[in-house]
Amino acid sequence: MTDSVFMAEITWPEFDAKTRAKVPFFLPVGATEQHGPHLPLGVDVYLPTHVAAKVAAEVGGLVAPTIPYGYKSQPRSGGGQAFPGTTSLAAHTLSLVVRDVVHDLGLHGVRRFVIVNGHFENTWPIIEGLDLAIRELRRDGIDDVTAMRLEYWDFVHRQTLDRLFPEGFPGTDLEHASLLETSMMLVVRPDLVDMEKVPSDGPARFPTYDRTPVPPGMVPASGVLARAQGSTAEKGQWLIDDHVSLIAAAVRREFGL
Amino acid sequence: MTDSVFMAEITWPEFDAKTRAKVPFFLPVGATEQHGPHLPLGVDVYLPTHVAAKVAAEVGGLVAPTIPYGYKSQPRSGGGQAFPGTTSLAAHTLSLVVRDVVHDLGLHGVRRFVIVNGHFENTWPIIEGLDLAIRELRRDGIDDVTAMRLEYWDFVHRQTLDRLFPEGFPGTDLEHASLLETSMMLVVRPDLVDMEKVPSDGPARFPTYDRTPVPPGMVPASGVLARAQGSTAEKGQWLIDDHVSLIAAAVRREFGL
Amino acid sequence: MTDSVFMAEITWPEFDAKTRAKVPFFLPVGATEQHGPHLPLGVDVYLPTHVAAKVAAEVGGLVAPTIPYGYKSQPRSGGGQAFPGTTSLAAHTLSLVVRDVVHDLGLHGVRRFVIVNGHFENTWPIIEGLDLAIRELRRDGIDDVTAMRLEYWDFVHRQTLDRLFPEGFPGTDLEHASLLETSMMLVVRPDLVDMEKVPSDGPARFPTYDRTPVPPGMVPASGVLARAQGSTAEKGQWLIDDHVSLIAAAVRREFGL
Amino acid sequence: MTDSVFMAEITWPEFDAKTRAKVPFFLPVGATEQHGPHLPLGVDVYLPTHVAAKVAAEVGGLVAPTIPYGYKSQPRSGGGQAFPGTTSLAAHTLSLVVRDVVHDLGLHGVRRFVIVNGHFENTWPIIEGLDLAIRELRRDGIDDVTAMRLEYWDFVHRQTLDRLFPEGFPGTDLEHASLLETSMMLVVRPDLVDMEKVPSDGPARFPTYDRTPVPPGMVPASGVLARAQGSTAEKGQWLIDDHVSLIAAAVRREFGL
Amino acid sequence: MTDSVFMAEITWPEFDAKTRAKVPFFLPVGATEQHGPHLPLGVDVYLPTHVAAKVAAEVGGLVAPTIPYGYKSQPRSGGGQAFPGTTSLAAHTLSLVVRDVVHDLGLHGVRRFVIVNGHFENTWPIIEGLDLAIRELRRDGIDDVTAMRLEYWDFVHRQTLDRLFPEGFPGTDLEHASLLETSMMLVVRPDLVDMEKVPSDGPARFPTYDRTPVPPGMVPASGVLARAQGSTAEKGQWLIDDHVSLIAAAVRREFGL
Amino acid sequence: MTDSVFMAEITWPEFDAKTRAKVPFFLPVGATEQHGPHLPLGVDVYLPTHVAAKVAAEVGGLVAPTIPYGYKSQPRSGGGQAFPGTTSLAAHTLSLVVRDVVHDLGLHGVRRFVIVNGHFENTWPIIEGLDLAIRELRRDGIDDVTAMRLEYWDFVHRQTLDRLFPEGFPGTDLEHASLLETSMMLVVRPDLVDMEKVPSDGPARFPTYDRTPVPPGMVPASGVLARAQGSTAEKGQWLIDDHVSLIAAAVRREFGL
Repeated sequence: MTDSVFMAEITWPEFDAKTRAKVPFFLPVGATEQHGPHLPLGVDVYLPTHVAAKVAAEVGGLVAPTIPYGYKSQPRSGGGQAFPGTTSLAAHTLSLVVRDVVHDLGLHGVRRFVIVNGHFENTWPIIEGLDLAIRELRRDGIDDVTAMRLEYWDFVHRQTLDRLFPEGFPGTDLEHASLLETSMMLVVRPDLVDMEKVPSDGPARFPTYDRTPVPPGMVPASGVLARAQGSTAEKGQWLIDDHVSLIAAAVRREFGL
Repeated sequence: MTDSVFMAEITWPEFDAKTRAKVPFFLPVGATEQHGPHLPLGVDVYLPTHVAAKVAAEVGGLVAPTIPYGYKSQPRSGGGQAFPGTTSLAAHTLSLVVRDVVHDLGLHGVRRFVIVNGHFENTWPIIEGLDLAIRELRRDGIDDVTAMRLEYWDFVHRQTLDRLFPEGFPGTDLEHASLLETSMMLVVRPDLVDMEKVPSDGPARFPTYDRTPVPPGMVPASGVLARAQGSTAEKGQWLIDDHVSLIAAAVRREFGL
Repeated sequence: MTDSVFMAEITWPEFDAKTRAKVPFFLPVGATEQHGPHLPLGVDVYLPTHVAAKVAAEVGGLVAPTIPYGYKSQPRSGGGQAFPGTTSLAAHTLSLVVRDVVHDLGLHGVRRFVIVNGHFENTWPIIEGLDLAIRELRRDGIDDVTAMRLEYWDFVHRQTLDRLFPEGFPGTDLEHASLLETSMMLVVRPDLVDMEKVPSDGPARFPTYDRTPVPPGMVPASGVLARAQGSTAEKGQWLIDDHVSLIAAAVRREFGL
Repeated sequence: MTDSVFMAEITWPEFDAKTRAKVPFFLPVGATEQHGPHLPLGVDVYLPTHVAAKVAAEVGGLVAPTIPYGYKSQPRSGGGQAFPGTTSLAAHTLSLVVRDVVHDLGLHGVRRFVIVNGHFENTWPIIEGLDLAIRELRRDGIDDVTAMRLEYWDFVHRQTLDRLFPEGFPGTDLEHASLLETSMMLVVRPDLVDMEKVPSDGPARFPTYDRTPVPPGMVPASGVLARAQGSTAEKGQWLIDDHVSLIAAAVRREFGL
Repeated sequence: MTDSVFMAEITWPEFDAKTRAKVPFFLPVGATEQHGPHLPLGVDVYLPTHVAAKVAAEVGGLVAPTIPYGYKSQPRSGGGQAFPGTTSLAAHTLSLVVRDVVHDLGLHGVRRFVIVNGHFENTWPIIEGLDLAIRELRRDGIDDVTAMRLEYWDFVHRQTLDRLFPEGFPGTDLEHASLLETSMMLVVRPDLVDMEKVPSDGPARFPTYDRTPVPPGMVPASGVLARAQGSTAEKGQWLIDDHVSLIAAAVRREFGL
Repeated sequence: MTDSVFMAEITWPEFDAKTRAKVPFFLPVGATEQHGPHLPLGVDVYLPTHVAAKVAAEVGGLVAPTIPYGYKSQPRSGGGQAFPGTTSLAAHTLSLVVRDVVHDLGLHGVRRFVIVNGHFENTWPIIEGLDLAIRELRRDGIDDVTAMRLEYWDFVHRQTLDRLFPEGFPGTDLEHASLLETSMMLVVRPDLVDMEKVPSDGPARFPTYDRTPVPPGMVPASGVLARAQGSTAEKGQWLIDDHVSLIAAAVRREFGL
């Protein structure tokens, strides 16, 4: 029991011991969002939780329960709120959740945070929530908190992307429910991937601005923004290996572990 | 894949089909809270999720991702916020989360909700969040939503309690990390229960009022409010069977299933 | 003038003297809610104010103005919001009111609070409001506040209930506009009780869950959840005597008075 | 019982009958604020409640429970928050209270509102709260609400002021705890007025701007901003007569009563 | 460059030098509101910005960017929200803006604030926002802030009003888009004044209370509440001279400059 | 007067005529933020206002007053909040401002919005504020609003970037107070640019994550993240021409102008 990296799986005395040992705490922030006809709604929960757990295991940290609902999906990055199943929080709500969780953990003695974002649209509500928590903790007399905040997909070797996209990486913008996420899901939860349902109505061609309401046809009907064809577990493992090793290295560097 | 009851495990077209079929949606609301030295911090997530999934399987419903952080633990019902690991949301935050999730599901066509509370202190923030969602949906032109809101532990046969407590049921108030929860955890996540660590510093004797700050000695140091000795998987199964069958019956009755 | 226990009836120098003397401050929190055809909408204001004033007189305290609007009435405990006249605050609003009042009193030097709840549904918004106030006061450098928070009806001798309900106490859940409240109103404001209008459409038989919208017939049409027949001023006096003496004893014990 | 103008004193069927009859509802908004060494903290509750009740009796209306806590006292109009006993709400809190109360009454069928302000600083939070309520009611399909919002002291004949201030009316700005309020309190609650404690450290001489923090000496130490000497019940009656008759006339005119 | 009084026009090292020198910071708060057919929507931005800049130049201060949206226009003071172009913030929003700006400036070392209101309806949301900022700064350990808060139009010599209104000053209440504002605009932005469009449908005759919805005919159709005829740049200069010199004198006095 | 594109400079009847003509409304959202020792704090106000005005002139639109305070500066994109002069709003505050302004304009009949962001960190609070406004307008019965939301710097020809950065465009991430902004300021407000103060302590080398608190040395001491050397008005004009022509083209396309 005590060797679990998941905070939910340990007792309070075990939590207390870890906190006193100043281990880093990972807080994955996910989403419940459409990911095409071949991937489940929970992709943005499974992936950051998996990565965070692997990193935590490497550096001796703990993973707080993943926040399973994220900020509103945007058409240009996740297809938008109109897709059935995409279930989201207002920005203020998500910021308050992050604020409350980080604040409470800080009151319990956690001093090293790694917020692991798994849903592009979460970035800014997390930034705000974390900032609010840090300010409140300071007012509570706790001013020695250090926090990293990251998107896990930013931790990848250039060479890996070159191997994955020999014709050039199209950019993370369109990588929703596409090659990267599909490949990683083939590692993390292959039982939830149906490669036969991979659509071919992408890639999306978005304008350089948001448009409300979303014009018909702007977002591919499948919800897959780029291409998921060619996804394999092998490629997924390359990515996960990069994410885990690079984040772990950054965590060790920041916290002197 | 498509036979999963977990919304996170299905695709958006599958979600859409279920929604159009007007299946009931279960939203478990949990907590991350101390449960003594023998139970993990995630008890209030594991138990309502388990019950909701069983009921959903029986009645053909879906389970939305469990909200893993709940309202602030109170000394008289959960030991209070001072216990290491108890990580909670402000009442307003939790209400907003429930509001946003129910509202978004309603916009997607969900019309039958069952909010399954797994943490005593959540009751009222859930009531408020649900009320806010229903009001907003009505303003959005959606006025045919029906919602049940329940504490799963209220669904138990009198006889079961008599079998469990031959000397008389002490009441749910003190049943935190005690016989009921421990027994059910021996069914749901036995790997996370350490019966050897069951403490014996209870039961708590609380006054008939809240007192802030909590006086030293009021809450048992272990965090277990009543007694966990004698917990067995068999007893846990009795409870789960009651919870599942009685909730399923109520759901069928309310929704004419 | 100076012997009034009501803060509203004394001057600021008198308030200041009492505050410096560290007397306990009572804050009754009421509601404006239907109480059947025989009781007025203000029952939940009159009763906790009366009890608080009696206790304050006994222990030398002051009673702050009663908050006259409470949290939304629930069908299973107060009939629900649909009853004409039931006029309520959102949970967040009520919590903010409690927060602001306690915070301001704390800034003025009040260090001993007794929040006297007179409306079942208020419990949790009060808990949150009080917690917010205590946290803010601490940030303002005031960390020596002690607060009791109670439902006045919990302070009753077992024997009294036995005398009142020789056939067994049905529980406080259904005691809305019923024997207890009616009897006490016959003491506190007999001019506002019309025993001839006492209905007989109860008691309510509620399921073990909330249901939105409220199904027709679930709540007795009168708004009286149990039975009010047999209410007398004598019985009301028994209750009030219990409430006052037991709360006074608890206050004295907590504050060493 | 049924002839009470106070909503708190009537039953829900009586409330319902009045509402269906479209009688005007008066909502007094008060404060708990220092009023010098000779007047109690509740002046701003007693006076608007009294006026509202008299007007309601004249025009056949009902008076909702007075909101007993108001917006933060300002040095130039009420002495400021530093005076012991002055216990106030944040602007947002007060606006939410007004919003919730008006909104709920509107849902119950009230269509004619008269918000009677009894505390200068409340004006703008009331304006906002009323506006929010009207907007929400409109979204709920209720668009035929009419509301008056007033400061009761604005309803006075020029001649009355001339009689009261033969040397010229100094303006309402400084009339805090001074001649007008003291005289009216001698009518409404003479038992709470101690004319022997009337101070003579005023009138205040304020600059034409707010200054934070309040400079020492700016506000008279007594909290009385102008002069209370010469206050009599007779003068108070002149004022109350004006307030009642002029407000009643305006109410009749607006609502065609 | 460095001699600009506008914070927006200087660099951060210049800002830093000024802050360290403890110069007063002026924060104009304006509005975007109808001002009749002869004045532009930006009057309440142009005028306080102009006055603040002149005062800042005299006393060696800096002017923060003017908040260009103010609180909701009221019928009796600005014609009300129904006039096309009147674009406003909720009270809570405006208070939060003022809170955030003052708080951030305080964190950067500003210790002397002069909030210059240019829109009557802003007064109370500014009061609240400033109070919130001061409280938060104190919690952040900054307790030596001094702030003045003023309406610029209150700084005028009696003689000037007598010269402007030989038949008696009608009071600031109706002075919306009328003689004072029109005359000053003829100084500050004469290119935006069209004296040929000055209407003659005023002055408004308002009751002594607010009325929602606004009855037809209550507000002059032009949006000009009093009279703008006779406005001249000369008169405007008298006013501006008074405003600038009197505010500058007050600022010098308060801050010992 | 009537040919001004600035809403602040026109009268309400002119605004009304434009609104009825369904012209697009531009809402620039800026910031008050450090931009190195050579650029003023108002850069993020001047540039989007200038671009919006030029586009509005081309397409016959109106420009609402620029929101002059933006979301908190982040170390990796703007140097962070610690730089003197950077004065920002909380995310919720900014979202509420955008919500209120768009909502009010919508109530006045505006149906075509173009939100022009001039500060990278504003993107997501604007997205939320716009979404809230659209939802509220829909509840108010207004469901035919179309809105574009854009960062002006995204509208640039590839060739222009190639001309500006012959050695390769380093990406917009570091382009804070650097070549692009400096060059454009040399067009828009050359009087506020001091090329002699252009620093050479960049470019910043940021990790792929946020780190709180900001480690010493991470952000260049000057606040300039990349390089500003080589900035010229000519280059600035290339950029502005691109921004204006490409945004105008998009606006025409979306609105069929």
